[in-house]
Amino acid sequence: MAQQARAIQTRQSILLAAATVFDERGYGSATISEILTRAGVTKGALYFHFSSKEELALGVMEAQLEVGVLPPQLTKLQELVDQGLVLAHRLRHEPLVRASVGLAMAQGGGELDRGLPFHSWIARLETLLTEAKQQGEVLSHVNPAEAAQLLAGAFSGIQEMSQVLCEREDLEQRISMLLRYVLPSIALPAVLAMLEITETRAERLLATVKEPDAPEAGSEEG
Amino acid sequence: MAQQARAIQTRQSILLAAATVFDERGYGSATISEILTRAGVTKGALYFHFSSKEELALGVMEAQLEVGVLPPQLTKLQELVDQGLVLAHRLRHEPLVRASVGLAMAQGGGELDRGLPFHSWIARLETLLTEAKQQGEVLSHVNPAEAAQLLAGAFSGIQEMSQVLCEREDLEQRISMLLRYVLPSIALPAVLAMLEITETRAERLLATVKEPDAPEAGSEEG
Repeated sequence: MAQQARAIQTRQSILLAAATVFDERGYGSATISEILTRAGVTKGALYFHFSSKEELALGVMEAQLEVGVLPPQLTKLQELVDQGLVLAHRLRHEPLVRASVGLAMAQGGGELDRGLPFHSWIARLETLLTEAKQQGEVLSHVNPAEAAQLLAGAFSGIQEMSQVLCEREDLEQRISMLLRYVLPSIALPAVLAMLEITETRAERLLATVKEPDAPEAGSEEG
Repeated sequence: MAQQARAIQTRQSILLAAATVFDERGYGSATISEILTRAGVTKGALYFHFSSKEELALGVMEAQLEVGVLPPQLTKLQELVDQGLVLAHRLRHEPLVRASVGLAMAQGGGELDRGLPFHSWIARLETLLTEAKQQGEVLSHVNPAEAAQLLAGAFSGIQEMSQVLCEREDLEQRISMLLRYVLPSIALPAVLAMLEITETRAERLLATVKEPDAPEAGSEEG
């Protein structure tokens, strides 16, 4: 068990090092040896977890999807709002998530499947919107697949613009604004009135969630 | 005059070559000599128009803003819609515009001011929204600066997602959808009902507009 916790920790350090190097240099120019140096692990340890630079990149790209389980809400649309606000918050505070999104947006990494995170996010949002529709929260003309794609695309551009203009300092504010402008075209008015779409919500939510896969405190010595 | 037309044409060929090379390799890996070869012009001709790779990149980035003058419309919000639909159409059909947006979105070109096109688009949309507000087309709570930023950011992400997922094949459809979901939070209902937000509008509009700076037909022999 201690060994497993240590393996998870090593994997996370490698991903974080890879994320940092991809973030600084771009995927194309990054080298495995630089990632090794940054992570402070042996070549053997790295190749035990990841067989190639591409696999490292896929691992980094998946990081943006691992939110852990957010607390269930009264409406599915609040859960959708929470996904957006929490991703915005994590983008501001977690280098691994930042690099994850950066990789998906980067041009010139031609060999990478940059569609992967888009597909995953669209699927996640579509599921929530479909459930919201089944529960009667959504206006009848709304197509969940269409709305999911709109939200995923708009989110990714707004975070990119926020990064370019101010290093994402105003990201939670901008994502709240996106949701406040788009949700009136999706939600029933009575549901809309129940939603909390504030810049500070994500921080409160995340305080209630355990990190996914985080090793137990003290497990390293065991 | 013939000489001026030829100079404009040379400048456009150089920008198009630079755009193609930036698009294929990314800004960081592109070289001036490759752009020279692609454009089929002399080093002297290139440096007459652009003093550095950075200046080439700025020239390419500005290309997305040069729409020429679109016909004035009954409402300012229709003109705003037209800007979005026309950019979507040009992104699909003009390599120079595609590379222009690609450069602004690319990570790792650290030395480039990627904020330039965002700032220009935000300013253009904000002007239109402010005029729309003065003409009473816009709901009273709408802040033109805020809405302009939202639209610019959302547009850029949706075009990026469309590129990643399907080489922008569905871009005009996706941008129409963005406008149809967001404008009900911006426009007065009576104005909303007057807007044309269709996938085919841009093509019709552009047919009525002369290319900006296009040399007159036959001017090359003069």
